[in-house]
Amino acid sequence: MDVIDELKSFRERDVPYTRVLSSMCTIPHPIAVEAHKMFINVNLGDPGIFRGSFELEKKLIEMLGRILHNQKASGYICSGGTEANIQAIRSFRNKNKSKKVNIVVPKTAHFSFDKAGEILCIEVKKAGVDENYRVDLGEVESLVDDRTIALVGVAGTTELGQIDPIVELSKLAEEKGIDLHVDAAFGGLVIPFLDNPYPFDFVNRGVSSLTVDPHKMGMATIPAGGILFRDESYLKFLEIETPYLTSKTQFTLTGTRPATGVASAYAVLKQLGFDGMRKIVKECMKNTKIVLEEVQALGFEQVIEPVMNIVAFKSDKAEKIRDKFYEKGWVISTIREPKAIRLVVMPHVTEEVIKEFISTFKKILSDL
Amino acid sequence: MDVIDELKSFRERDVPYTRVLSSMCTIPHPIAVEAHKMFINVNLGDPGIFRGSFELEKKLIEMLGRILHNQKASGYICSGGTEANIQAIRSFRNKNKSKKVNIVVPKTAHFSFDKAGEILCIEVKKAGVDENYRVDLGEVESLVDDRTIALVGVAGTTELGQIDPIVELSKLAEEKGIDLHVDAAFGGLVIPFLDNPYPFDFVNRGVSSLTVDPHKMGMATIPAGGILFRDESYLKFLEIETPYLTSKTQFTLTGTRPATGVASAYAVLKQLGFDGMRKIVKECMKNTKIVLEEVQALGFEQVIEPVMNIVAFKSDKAEKIRDKFYEKGWVISTIREPKAIRLVVMPHVTEEVIKEFISTFKKILSDL
Repeated sequence: MDVIDELKSFRERDVPYTRVLSSMCTIPHPIAVEAHKMFINVNLGDPGIFRGSFELEKKLIEMLGRILHNQKASGYICSGGTEANIQAIRSFRNKNKSKKVNIVVPKTAHFSFDKAGEILCIEVKKAGVDENYRVDLGEVESLVDDRTIALVGVAGTTELGQIDPIVELSKLAEEKGIDLHVDAAFGGLVIPFLDNPYPFDFVNRGVSSLTVDPHKMGMATIPAGGILFRDESYLKFLEIETPYLTSKTQFTLTGTRPATGVASAYAVLKQLGFDGMRKIVKECMKNTKIVLEEVQALGFEQVIEPVMNIVAFKSDKAEKIRDKFYEKGWVISTIREPKAIRLVVMPHVTEEVIKEFISTFKKILSDL
Repeated sequence: MDVIDELKSFRERDVPYTRVLSSMCTIPHPIAVEAHKMFINVNLGDPGIFRGSFELEKKLIEMLGRILHNQKASGYICSGGTEANIQAIRSFRNKNKSKKVNIVVPKTAHFSFDKAGEILCIEVKKAGVDENYRVDLGEVESLVDDRTIALVGVAGTTELGQIDPIVELSKLAEEKGIDLHVDAAFGGLVIPFLDNPYPFDFVNRGVSSLTVDPHKMGMATIPAGGILFRDESYLKFLEIETPYLTSKTQFTLTGTRPATGVASAYAVLKQLGFDGMRKIVKECMKNTKIVLEEVQALGFEQVIEPVMNIVAFKSDKAEKIRDKFYEKGWVISTIREPKAIRLVVMPHVTEEVIKEFISTFKKILSDL
């Protein structure tokens, strides 16, 4: 068999996005794909060679900084939210020069903070949440001790799309003189385009860094994560000497680094603009409401009122339902506390997709 | 200006590969680009969705394992050599369950080991090299203490393309009962295709893990690094629980993970086969010899006899020469000990490119 045919046979076994309601990734915007192809050879790990691409990355960081209320934001486009979260915590740890430290994160935070803790030799203390699955401020405060170097808040939790009380976390961080990282990997390119955006970003003086992933709701190609720091001082704590490159130091976690995510993210944001992004988010929120109502009509209750385009429904049979969907070629996911099925309504989850999804759901329920 | 035109204007400021003799990356093989485009939407971080792509990755790891004398190799395709090196050291650290540990690396090892040490809270001890820039075995042995968990050897050093005495390092590691990681990011897809390949890989029983980057001499698209472990037990030490994904655990450093590198690396190796790769390497070695002779004729002496397609020439004016090349639109790099210019003869460095390079070099020397 010809190599390309062989590759096709593997690719065909992937579940198409139009059957996926579990992922925060989506079909990239056509302009993203076009931009991606133009930068396919570029290694941003060597900015002395790829000078134009490196300039483009700076422009994109500026653009994201403007969206997130910080014209002085410093950072880079990375492999995704996990790298972004690790790098924020690494910067804070190195700034504090001590290795025996801890951070306080909501128990609903992404598992990349566990990964960061293990990798960086940092204790990760977990604060409980209130009845709306926002982190409990009292619990956060009680977990802070003299070894705590940072707090974490999430703007768009992975499981429910909930936003932690970043305003109050920011005040607490300022009061304690410690850093605050906001994981807005998902929400960073949703919340600014909602009708009544919650102030989750650098507008809060206590926010030191922020994760925002263009390859999620920014419809860029994979990989395009983003880590933004309040100012460039935080990047200094990440620098390693690079004797044989065209740059003298390197602050990224990885070495070789594609520019495809930079180009594709820039292309989408520039092409769509603020209004275009609002339209995309509006459409996703409209479809989330349709999913909410349709699944309610099947007898399910939502865990929280959807804040963004993620919705979860309580069910003791959540895992069984997920497995049945899986058998029928669909992918949804579950959460464990409370037991629930979880649906992410990305741009590829159109009204047409929802119709087929609900019809499949009905069949599954009748067999259950 | 139209977004695509704007992107073009940035891309045009990048130095084209045909003016780059400093990079271990190259123009990807045409089949790699074709394969890349087919997998542009895939996130291997979610293998339950991208089942076919995940199978393809397993096939590629098997294929690399066969090339590197280990049918049981376990591993994955990552962002590059840096992630691969970090992950190997992280696995060894976690296996040893202690946080107060050290590793012994050649002082010529890539700076990613400094990065790994800083990130993972591990001391990095550096052993000197012999007159051929291979790590000094006596020095390695004298640096090993009861806190040493692993040795590192390099098969294709970044600066000179030299190969450390892996056979002896492997024996030493076995004797001491510690792990040995081989950084063959560059050499892993060169050495097997040389006329007289040095036994640098899993053929040595003491080798626990190996870095091999298809996006270097494997002519895959960026990013395509590779980390291979002797067996899957090493991956267990990297596992983190992943509550809301289609998989239960994750051993990768990053979360979201492109499949473009998997597809492009597989396509190149499958299409070219062992004979095709030998031809590519032979051509690079032939061109390295041309560069060697032409630059010798200009009055320079090589640092070592080239082992693979990297050659360095001693010069007190190395940095000045590099800067002059830079002004003329070329990129070469320098090394610090001994002061030398360094040239990497990748597949894009054709006879035609060498001709223009030497003619530019002559002009630079006459102005110096």
